[in-house]
Amino acid sequence: MKTQQAVAQRSTHMNGLDVQATFDTIDAIKSDSSLAKFQFRARNAWIDGGINRSTIRDFYGAGREDHSRDSDFVFMNGEPPVLLGNNEGANPVEFLLHALAGCVTTTLITHATARGITIQELSTELEGDLDVRGLLGLDDSVSPGFEQIRIRMHVKADCSDEALDDLLAYTQQHSPVCNTVCRPVPVKIHRATS
Amino acid sequence: MKTQQAVAQRSTHMNGLDVQATFDTIDAIKSDSSLAKFQFRARNAWIDGGINRSTIRDFYGAGREDHSRDSDFVFMNGEPPVLLGNNEGANPVEFLLHALAGCVTTTLITHATARGITIQELSTELEGDLDVRGLLGLDDSVSPGFEQIRIRMHVKADCSDEALDDLLAYTQQHSPVCNTVCRPVPVKIHRATS
Repeated sequence: MKTQQAVAQRSTHMNGLDVQATFDTIDAIKSDSSLAKFQFRARNAWIDGGINRSTIRDFYGAGREDHSRDSDFVFMNGEPPVLLGNNEGANPVEFLLHALAGCVTTTLITHATARGITIQELSTELEGDLDVRGLLGLDDSVSPGFEQIRIRMHVKADCSDEALDDLLAYTQQHSPVCNTVCRPVPVKIHRATS
Repeated sequence: MKTQQAVAQRSTHMNGLDVQATFDTIDAIKSDSSLAKFQFRARNAWIDGGINRSTIRDFYGAGREDHSRDSDFVFMNGEPPVLLGNNEGANPVEFLLHALAGCVTTTLITHATARGITIQELSTELEGDLDVRGLLGLDDSVSPGFEQIRIRMHVKADCSDEALDDLLAYTQQHSPVCNTVCRPVPVKIHRATS
């Protein structure tokens, strides 16, 4: 009985995702595209110098406000001594690399599952080049942001190298954070007057 | 004696930043631009489904490898139930908002200090619109990334509204994460073959 349950469970899960729920979600969005609209949010408060703290909890998606989280996620930004801080947290550009790493990973897992590919191992190493003359306004020809970001991906799967390379290319094109970095996305800053 | 020390300390710090160290850093980079070159890094390992974990520690900057951190920063990505997870962590696009919030905050504080403006309060609220049809590959006309990100900034400072608006515009142009989002930045994914 226990063995049968285990087999049944394996057959509906792949790469840690519920395969039926994945396809049900895709079908629901296909029949009502308004369910695909999400709004994510963060609130941040400056503490001192290069230290500030974000809280993340609510968002809108799948046609309603989400109430699944019973507490906030809280993250601290800090800076290392060479950037005038005391390592109170990772710094913002490092958090961007974390976001990018996580997004390409989850995007790859999602599409591997949709294609019936089992992923055995997946890890990434990221490097991003940044020239702080841009941040400091010392040279207008230097962009303040990352010049380039490189991701080295280690992946083992039950498919051919060709199928894996196709999955990686698809992942790069469809990862929300990768797309936000690769494409110009408008950021509107509005000063609250009250 | 204690009072004199307190006064001396106040006079060299503004907005939690060491003013002398800030200008020393700027002068050092002006005289040797190679000190401005940084490389930031993250390592990430997939755990299961939409769960993965990043470790952040070392980086290169100011002409050398940094060894100031005696332990890793560790962050978990997860997904809410509506995106097939169990809220094991904030999700990658939420971490991107945290990175952006932190970066505009630290950039504003840095340039306020360089301009001699004291910031009394600073907080931000961010919203980003995302249509998951892009991620899922259901409609090629829908971008997978954020369509737009809005930042509402609450700030109190010892300067005029005009000086504050000028500082905000400068911050938007010089924040590394904001610039990475607003500008197309190349992301190169390479599959390790060994």
